[in-house]
Amino acid sequence: MGKKIGFIGVGTMGKPMAKNLLKAGFEMTTCMHVNPVPVRELEELGAKVASSPKEVAVLSEVVITCLPDAPQVEEVILGPNGILEGATPGSIIIDTSTISPLATQRIAAVVAQKGCKMLDAPMSGGEAGAIAGTLTFMVGGDKTAFEACRDIFEAMGKQIYHVGDVGMGEVLKLCNNLMLGINLLGVCEAFTLGVKAGLKAETLAEVVGVSSGNSAVIERYLPRTILRNQYKPGFMLDLMCKDMGLALQLAKALDIPTLVGSSTGQVLDLVQGMGKGRDDFTVVATLYQDVAGVTIAGKK
Amino acid sequence: MGKKIGFIGVGTMGKPMAKNLLKAGFEMTTCMHVNPVPVRELEELGAKVASSPKEVAVLSEVVITCLPDAPQVEEVILGPNGILEGATPGSIIIDTSTISPLATQRIAAVVAQKGCKMLDAPMSGGEAGAIAGTLTFMVGGDKTAFEACRDIFEAMGKQIYHVGDVGMGEVLKLCNNLMLGINLLGVCEAFTLGVKAGLKAETLAEVVGVSSGNSAVIERYLPRTILRNQYKPGFMLDLMCKDMGLALQLAKALDIPTLVGSSTGQVLDLVQGMGKGRDDFTVVATLYQDVAGVTIAGKK
Amino acid sequence: MGKKIGFIGVGTMGKPMAKNLLKAGFEMTTCMHVNPVPVRELEELGAKVASSPKEVAVLSEVVITCLPDAPQVEEVILGPNGILEGATPGSIIIDTSTISPLATQRIAAVVAQKGCKMLDAPMSGGEAGAIAGTLTFMVGGDKTAFEACRDIFEAMGKQIYHVGDVGMGEVLKLCNNLMLGINLLGVCEAFTLGVKAGLKAETLAEVVGVSSGNSAVIERYLPRTILRNQYKPGFMLDLMCKDMGLALQLAKALDIPTLVGSSTGQVLDLVQGMGKGRDDFTVVATLYQDVAGVTIAGKK
Amino acid sequence: MGKKIGFIGVGTMGKPMAKNLLKAGFEMTTCMHVNPVPVRELEELGAKVASSPKEVAVLSEVVITCLPDAPQVEEVILGPNGILEGATPGSIIIDTSTISPLATQRIAAVVAQKGCKMLDAPMSGGEAGAIAGTLTFMVGGDKTAFEACRDIFEAMGKQIYHVGDVGMGEVLKLCNNLMLGINLLGVCEAFTLGVKAGLKAETLAEVVGVSSGNSAVIERYLPRTILRNQYKPGFMLDLMCKDMGLALQLAKALDIPTLVGSSTGQVLDLVQGMGKGRDDFTVVATLYQDVAGVTIAGKK
Repeated sequence: MGKKIGFIGVGTMGKPMAKNLLKAGFEMTTCMHVNPVPVRELEELGAKVASSPKEVAVLSEVVITCLPDAPQVEEVILGPNGILEGATPGSIIIDTSTISPLATQRIAAVVAQKGCKMLDAPMSGGEAGAIAGTLTFMVGGDKTAFEACRDIFEAMGKQIYHVGDVGMGEVLKLCNNLMLGINLLGVCEAFTLGVKAGLKAETLAEVVGVSSGNSAVIERYLPRTILRNQYKPGFMLDLMCKDMGLALQLAKALDIPTLVGSSTGQVLDLVQGMGKGRDDFTVVATLYQDVAGVTIAGKK
Repeated sequence: MGKKIGFIGVGTMGKPMAKNLLKAGFEMTTCMHVNPVPVRELEELGAKVASSPKEVAVLSEVVITCLPDAPQVEEVILGPNGILEGATPGSIIIDTSTISPLATQRIAAVVAQKGCKMLDAPMSGGEAGAIAGTLTFMVGGDKTAFEACRDIFEAMGKQIYHVGDVGMGEVLKLCNNLMLGINLLGVCEAFTLGVKAGLKAETLAEVVGVSSGNSAVIERYLPRTILRNQYKPGFMLDLMCKDMGLALQLAKALDIPTLVGSSTGQVLDLVQGMGKGRDDFTVVATLYQDVAGVTIAGKK
Repeated sequence: MGKKIGFIGVGTMGKPMAKNLLKAGFEMTTCMHVNPVPVRELEELGAKVASSPKEVAVLSEVVITCLPDAPQVEEVILGPNGILEGATPGSIIIDTSTISPLATQRIAAVVAQKGCKMLDAPMSGGEAGAIAGTLTFMVGGDKTAFEACRDIFEAMGKQIYHVGDVGMGEVLKLCNNLMLGINLLGVCEAFTLGVKAGLKAETLAEVVGVSSGNSAVIERYLPRTILRNQYKPGFMLDLMCKDMGLALQLAKALDIPTLVGSSTGQVLDLVQGMGKGRDDFTVVATLYQDVAGVTIAGKK
Repeated sequence: MGKKIGFIGVGTMGKPMAKNLLKAGFEMTTCMHVNPVPVRELEELGAKVASSPKEVAVLSEVVITCLPDAPQVEEVILGPNGILEGATPGSIIIDTSTISPLATQRIAAVVAQKGCKMLDAPMSGGEAGAIAGTLTFMVGGDKTAFEACRDIFEAMGKQIYHVGDVGMGEVLKLCNNLMLGINLLGVCEAFTLGVKAGLKAETLAEVVGVSSGNSAVIERYLPRTILRNQYKPGFMLDLMCKDMGLALQLAKALDIPTLVGSSTGQVLDLVQGMGKGRDDFTVVATLYQDVAGVTIAGKK
């Protein structure tokens, strides 16, 4: 029989994650938070509904949070009627939000004072991965607590990594997305250049795909978006801008130069500011194509 | 019995390429150019030695050039006593140098006026690949001429791509190296950040290696250089700066924005200006590590 | 007879400002804060010494703060035993620190709830201006409160501007320093280029001084620092990096693109990271000169 | 009685310059070049019309050129039927075009072989200055030749500087415009930020105008363009992009880092690529305002 799990934050990502946990047989308590519709949906699937994060914690061994940013995480865990008020020594809190690792570590320190443990477990894989249960989790925090929750992660994801102390899950995700953003801009600039100079985009993709300029952007994103000139998300530019902002802010706090990361962040924000925030993050390629007067995708 | 081949430019790359052609049974003529030592070495292996590029062309069906930059290529092909003076209609010139595609196209137009054909065939794989005969060639130019020379390319390399009209080989190489440079900077910034924030570099490399931030830089270069804190080339920063310069110059000529490529070029040039030009191009990681006060490679 | 003034934060800038107020005949109370030496010095000149910011406020009509950054300002004004606990309705708080205008506005809102008024009044002019009483003040906040304090500002400075609502003093200072930093980098790049290309720096400065590329950097800073190859502050790079950081952070919060400001901030931080933080901010010119192998100042 | 002057390149700038020379009493020969209309206009004012640059040179002691870029200058001076074919030892060529100083020096070296002298004399002041005869000239080349031509420069301009050897006029102009471009971007970013944060643009301009962030952009350009939200040239963005391109290309050739100049050049090119090339160069402010959703000029 499964552990008693609490789940707070049942939005686009959280709802399908919670469903997969229910399907795997875990007992679940959730609570009202912003939008009642997905809460009712989970209730029909067997979840209990508590009146506050505190009450969720009273009824659970492990509480999972999946929230937009640090202020919400802080309020739900540390605020009045928050998780920590209901938690007992030994309780585990898993935060799957992408937030500043400095905020994570600050919250975790308070959590630890009550004898509880916090794991930061940001994920990648998007809504599709959340529905399919194929997310990747990068988990920071106590190794024993991590092992105790392995079955929970495996109900929601496919690749589960313990990457270090608390906060390191967030750090790893931000580092990954910093490179993702930079690599994307490399693809945008090089493909606009290549096509305008006379190459076919498919030829460029094929040859670079076995060469030193290759990247996951070329393998995973390019064929579905830029090569088809369609930018339905996927991974929204708004979210990419948020993650780049967090990465660059962390770098500033730690005195790490980010000359290329900063340029990248500026270009992403520029395109977001042009009203493309809800498109796939690869939509930044359209800025280059518009200015160059060229279409990477070629004729249809 | 093999074609009659001319080979001009027998330096670090050219000499082993020429040796592999001799080994494969091609008849070869070379000529004095800068340094006599490798010319004598090829003579002992059976190559004829002519007195000028013109005479090389007289004695060959296909002439290969492997030179530092556009002015040398222009002089050897179009200059007095150059290849074109000795070539006959139907002769093929293969230029394996990395130069501006606009220069390539300018030279090829003159070559075509004499009824000859020019292929641009820049390569990747470095000195090691040249010795092992495992280079990658990206070839632009007439398809029939390319097919006629396939045996020549296969004697020197492993992956042979025909990528479009004349100049497109150069374009593809520059696009690849533009992305290579940008991706490298992403790795430098993200790994310095991750390690200073508390991650192990190996953990970061492992998890990103299966995630969206992955790149050939992480797979091919990082383990041999930055993770070992050793920067013997490999691919010299001087050459990387040359290629980035050519790519950005082409982008400027074609009105392609390169906001991130320009930042990348500036950082590469900065480290080159600090006296690191003859190290491996990944040495740019040391700038970040020095400023951040951290070593990615961990303790030795 | 002068107003009763409190003064908290008597460091490099604050001490000479407080002395000028005493000289102008204001009654002053200060209190221990970090370093007792300047407090004793002011005591000998006639200032009272209270035991806490709260007690300072009890004894004063207007309290001036001059502190490193927002957390200190917040603690001294809003914290336990802080100014607000001792203030009475009608009291005025003047914060001369350079901090985020968002923090200023947050603090001012709390101050207003108690019927007090806050003016933000960051200054420029450096230690020399503080000693000479020639500072420039850019003041935000209630116009009547500003006018009521005009005599105070005039005792410490020469140019006194009321620039808008509370927070606008900080905004104006950050905007000014954002341009100052960017203009400095323009000077560094153009003068290194000009000198290496063969111009005399003095000729370049003279002609640009009457042309469209002119800036206060050329008129005020260049002759004293870069043209003499000496970088004693003046305005420390550490402080410039702090101000640029605040400006860029504000821009990010307000969705303003800063493509050039971000590059500038990165270069400033880079030179700071090379150990030059305590030199004059113009020391960034040495990075360019070192890489270019040229000295702008010419032979000595 | 005035010197015999040749004038080649009577476009937007050249025509009014030539008129001022005629008005000052110089004997002038011009020749057909691209557009016959202004040539006829000068003929009516007393200029002779020759059939080629060579013939112009035969009839003149000093020949002035005012052309778009280096290839045209090279052709008119060194090409077949060019100036040099008609010049005699002692002739002086004054090139007022803005071109690469490396091109200038290359051409000047050939000119010198024939015993002639070349001055490079790029100007600033725009069409208005050309008409009013108030241009600024930055002149490089032999000092004696410069002094011999002082009356010529004074007929066309107001501020005449001899700034060094041949090419140094161009270098100085490019350095000036590099700073102009960078300073402009500083103004764009800071004013968009300030206004969105709540400042009035006029207040910001007034206070910065007496502070360390001041620049000629704020004094000369801002009030006429950005503060009125009107971008009639003035100085076209197309020309600014050309000058920035020349400056950055020279910097690359001389191994000068231009981290901020490159970012600036990219932003200028971006706005040019959005179809704004024929507006005043300050039009780049509209990119920032559009993305930020704010108008610097305030309500109309």
